[in-house]
Amino acid sequence: MGRWEPDARGRMIRAAMELFAERGFEQTTAGDIAESAGVTERTFFRHFADKREVLFDSSETMQRTAYDAILAASGDLSPLDAALAGMVAGGALLADRRDHAVRRSRIIAANPGLHERELLKLAAMADTTSEALGRRGVTEPDAGLAAHMAVTVFHVAFARWISAEEPRGLDACIAEAAAALRALK
Amino acid sequence: MGRWEPDARGRMIRAAMELFAERGFEQTTAGDIAESAGVTERTFFRHFADKREVLFDSSETMQRTAYDAILAASGDLSPLDAALAGMVAGGALLADRRDHAVRRSRIIAANPGLHERELLKLAAMADTTSEALGRRGVTEPDAGLAAHMAVTVFHVAFARWISAEEPRGLDACIAEAAAALRALK
Repeated sequence: MGRWEPDARGRMIRAAMELFAERGFEQTTAGDIAESAGVTERTFFRHFADKREVLFDSSETMQRTAYDAILAASGDLSPLDAALAGMVAGGALLADRRDHAVRRSRIIAANPGLHERELLKLAAMADTTSEALGRRGVTEPDAGLAAHMAVTVFHVAFARWISAEEPRGLDACIAEAAAALRALK
Repeated sequence: MGRWEPDARGRMIRAAMELFAERGFEQTTAGDIAESAGVTERTFFRHFADKREVLFDSSETMQRTAYDAILAASGDLSPLDAALAGMVAGGALLADRRDHAVRRSRIIAANPGLHERELLKLAAMADTTSEALGRRGVTEPDAGLAAHMAVTVFHVAFARWISAEEPRGLDACIAEAAAALRALK
């Protein structure tokens, strides 16, 4: 990224969110986003494979963060607790972006293709989590099961976090969903 | 379906599986499948929205079967047990089609687009399961959590079922995966 484009990426994300909310996702092109952010279309495509990826900007960072946190977690944590520690660490990246998360969810809910991509990202997060548990010595089927449970907890907690009337921390929502999951047995 | 096409659907499924395995999924067209099954392309598209759907032929029936089984399950079952009863009922539809399931999984594993569609079908199964639990009076987040856990158990059990060297029943694999899930702390 050249220094003639300070925070071009951030500007593109903000411009895209506004255009998606105003005109709708389908009616917004990559060119519109670039223009509104004051960059060229080529710059847009240097940052994002397509306009959908703007909405999944943080998902790779979250996966990496969760992976690292699972490896760093205390050795005496159970597979499920280690996986949940990863979700908490990944979720912490979103902590001060609740408004963004709420708007993003509305855009995704209005578009089946985006909903599909969200499911794929969640599946990828489960795969990464399972891989991290494997590196802690957890074998199958436990690694896959614990990973899917943790991602389900994250998914449910995230939905509660963005829909709660009285805003609470995402970490509190994760703890609550994890407790509900354990109580289900 | 006219009587001049006895088991046209079954013939198309079998023809598609052979062609996908021989030539690869990408290299097989709907026209190829129709020709090989001795039907017109128009007939093919009366049965399937596209060639991918041939591989997901049983997924709607499975969802419906699981849904009905969850509603029919004994009222004193826990949400998770009721959801698992749905998975066992849905899985029973596959019981005598293990060879088909093995070949199908190989085709899907070789094609990312098919893997995506499989994830979407699993997500749809979780939604249907959650809805059925809702009709049993289970509230959120329990309904969503129990549904996702049950579908995860199904997913893991299915993978073990088709990869087991010594074939076992899918129901036994589901019971084993459910026990492993409950044992995760």
